[in-house]
Amino acid sequence: MSTIFVVGIGPGAYEKMTIEAADALRNCDVIIGYTVYVDLVKEHFAGKEFLTTPMRKEVERCRLAFETAAEGKQVAMICSGDAGVYGMAGLMYELSEEWPDIEIKVIPGVTAATGGAAVLGAPLIHDFALISLSDLLTPWEKIEKRLLLASEADFVICLYNPGSHKRADYLEKACDLMLRYKAPETVCGIVSQIGRDGETSRTMTLAELRNTKVDMFTTVFIGNSQTKEIRDHMVTPRGYRYE
Amino acid sequence: MSTIFVVGIGPGAYEKMTIEAADALRNCDVIIGYTVYVDLVKEHFAGKEFLTTPMRKEVERCRLAFETAAEGKQVAMICSGDAGVYGMAGLMYELSEEWPDIEIKVIPGVTAATGGAAVLGAPLIHDFALISLSDLLTPWEKIEKRLLLASEADFVICLYNPGSHKRADYLEKACDLMLRYKAPETVCGIVSQIGRDGETSRTMTLAELRNTKVDMFTTVFIGNSQTKEIRDHMVTPRGYRYE
Repeated sequence: MSTIFVVGIGPGAYEKMTIEAADALRNCDVIIGYTVYVDLVKEHFAGKEFLTTPMRKEVERCRLAFETAAEGKQVAMICSGDAGVYGMAGLMYELSEEWPDIEIKVIPGVTAATGGAAVLGAPLIHDFALISLSDLLTPWEKIEKRLLLASEADFVICLYNPGSHKRADYLEKACDLMLRYKAPETVCGIVSQIGRDGETSRTMTLAELRNTKVDMFTTVFIGNSQTKEIRDHMVTPRGYRYE
Repeated sequence: MSTIFVVGIGPGAYEKMTIEAADALRNCDVIIGYTVYVDLVKEHFAGKEFLTTPMRKEVERCRLAFETAAEGKQVAMICSGDAGVYGMAGLMYELSEEWPDIEIKVIPGVTAATGGAAVLGAPLIHDFALISLSDLLTPWEKIEKRLLLASEADFVICLYNPGSHKRADYLEKACDLMLRYKAPETVCGIVSQIGRDGETSRTMTLAELRNTKVDMFTTVFIGNSQTKEIRDHMVTPRGYRYE
């Protein structure tokens, strides 16, 4: 039985990949992924065969992985961040029923939530909820409900896909929903291009976040009621008592 | 200005550490951490000075890191998983106000949620909430509220610290709360000793999970209404349409 490795390469920089992920890419014949991610790893894995499909061609990309593995090649399918967080691991398992002789092994990586948190300080130290604002595959009503209930529960919230050209006002809409339960002065932070050239980050209040424009390479963090700003960093206390 | 690296070493196995984390440990003079985590990395970083404090001595451990850095030594403070997810990064920032000349840099790692998800299949492909059942530092009423609202919002839920000797019935209590909104046949999974010797995993229904005993080395996953079992794995669809 052959195995396809579904590999999370982390936020982008080679050093943010796990040793296990780098080993899997070194030991495979073919690396398959979205064009942008293949470009991120290419220089570190010379001599491999690279196959790419554009965005929105996820099903084709998965089928390509199975077909290539069925030819007897060792395949690694790469995803940015963690392959299991809004990544391709799920679809690979769903399609794998058509290829019962091929096994899937997921190799975890650093997702944008924890990669971005490390840049901002320590926003995710306590219970948090991860919500994607993309309504391409999820009805907006469901996203809205999750934003409201997660805010009512006082979770730290991390938003993936907070905006794009088409969805320019989604972050503003999300902030208005969160403001029903979270205070306007709630400490928030944004990180763009995590672990890549041009990485930037900023802390601000939820009221300020509402009027901030973000793109699809930005990850957004909204604190809980205890999150504070310490030395320009966003920090959520765990609750250890100290004098 | 000197810098302390707060390093997430991942679930435990050396290969699950990022390249950046391994570099930070190789380049430091002193590695500080909870005894169990220091034992996990010791053999890979021979020649370093190792300092440990037991569990519940987190504040002392952080002060030790600052005092050692103030002596001019390069310090790495290690945490299992990601240092920013129920880890020491928050407390390090909080205490850092007493040491304004020392900078903190967090190096992210694979947390148990994504490490465990990779073992089970792909349970976290869509929006999820991370909740710790430990009421040592959080009032149980707050945990209860978060379990209820996260279930009502149909999040996939990942539970950290689901049980211990003292809290033997906490998972059962948590399941009863989640069962108010989630169906008894909701697909769930548990993983123990992620990435370490003796790693085990199991998928089951929420009704079965309610009657399952777990320890503090177990991470628990409760699916959303769409999570399914595919080839013995726990898989949450993202929603890509395919025929």
